[in-house]
Amino acid sequence: MGPLATHDFYRKVIECTPAADDPQHIPVVMVADTQIPLRIPAWEGRGPSPLPALIKAAQQCVGAGATVLAMPCNTAHFWFEELVAALPRNVQFLHIADETVRCLPQALPQEMSPGMSQARRIALAGTHVTLAMKLYQQAAQRLGMNADWLLPSEDEQALITAVIADVKAGCIDQAVAHFNSAVQALEQRGAEAVILGCTELPVIAQSVASRVRLIDATDCLARACVQACKP
Amino acid sequence: MGPLATHDFYRKVIECTPAADDPQHIPVVMVADTQIPLRIPAWEGRGPSPLPALIKAAQQCVGAGATVLAMPCNTAHFWFEELVAALPRNVQFLHIADETVRCLPQALPQEMSPGMSQARRIALAGTHVTLAMKLYQQAAQRLGMNADWLLPSEDEQALITAVIADVKAGCIDQAVAHFNSAVQALEQRGAEAVILGCTELPVIAQSVASRVRLIDATDCLARACVQACKP
Repeated sequence: MGPLATHDFYRKVIECTPAADDPQHIPVVMVADTQIPLRIPAWEGRGPSPLPALIKAAQQCVGAGATVLAMPCNTAHFWFEELVAALPRNVQFLHIADETVRCLPQALPQEMSPGMSQARRIALAGTHVTLAMKLYQQAAQRLGMNADWLLPSEDEQALITAVIADVKAGCIDQAVAHFNSAVQALEQRGAEAVILGCTELPVIAQSVASRVRLIDATDCLARACVQACKP
Repeated sequence: MGPLATHDFYRKVIECTPAADDPQHIPVVMVADTQIPLRIPAWEGRGPSPLPALIKAAQQCVGAGATVLAMPCNTAHFWFEELVAALPRNVQFLHIADETVRCLPQALPQEMSPGMSQARRIALAGTHVTLAMKLYQQAAQRLGMNADWLLPSEDEQALITAVIADVKAGCIDQAVAHFNSAVQALEQRGAEAVILGCTELPVIAQSVASRVRLIDATDCLARACVQACKP
């Protein structure tokens, strides 16, 4: 949905594909329909549902031969089940939060002794909708993973909301400054890691000077896609 | 065709679109079919023609609503006319060399007094097929532009061929080193500017320390697309 987020996802698909020339890369169909009704207003009941447009985009991908689908937009996962239900059963639609939770065991910093079962303190960064619908908490529950979720305070969320708007508007320097402040605040409150639970965030994450681990949901989704496409 | 080249083209479309949020961006459909038969062996009569696959990919874009088409691969423009002929007449298919030649007057260094009609010395970098089919020379002729083309020597072409393969394999550092040598050689032979006439080249061009102007055909094509999509 966000063009830079989609672009970032595509780069990660390319980079984590072991390939020495074009034919060894995965054929990709991308429908980056920027006219899909906005997800946040729809969720808040202030605008039309994006679901019909999401279904149409997914069907266009399937029509062009896609068998593994992904949607690099966390907020849009609010409509995930309805979207999957509208598609042929033989396509595999990967869920961004499920794939990120699957990455957590390797992605978390390993200071603690292995085998310890204490829940890790993981902060969530995303749109307020992604947080309100508990996208990551429910994925962890589905996959039997225990975490001590650290949710952004109102001030921290205001910073994260600003970062997302900055990236969508192409104001990268401003986005980095805002996100640095947000991550520092979450770190001071004890976060061991921060899940980048909005696909606009990894676009600027490499420029953020953070001591906590930033867990890139876009990267987890891209890796899962490449894995699923293996012959 | 090359995934990183396609990725680079998409970024340029995003970056040259004036947009403050998602809906102001252009809806993009991308069919990055890495299984399209290889263009160079086909041109050399050593492999199947990519034309049927190119037509299919373009038709998939049109089927998903695209009205402006572009193909960020110079070599594949060998099949451009046949491809356009197979598509509905109401789609606009932009030609990478035509759009690049249209950019030349502004893109060339302005040392010379304006109004001088002397042909400028422009080097061409691309696959040996793009050079053999005179893609840029013919575009310049079509558009009434006079240039003094500087073609790569055998050694320079070997370097450029290596750069293209390096980028396709993701070996970026090696690509930069090879391209630095090629550009220096062309500069020493009097090039005022070098047209990056293979879409793998701009992927690494920003890392090349060049005093001559590098003219990015991918960027010219992206700008023309954004212009053509203006309401």
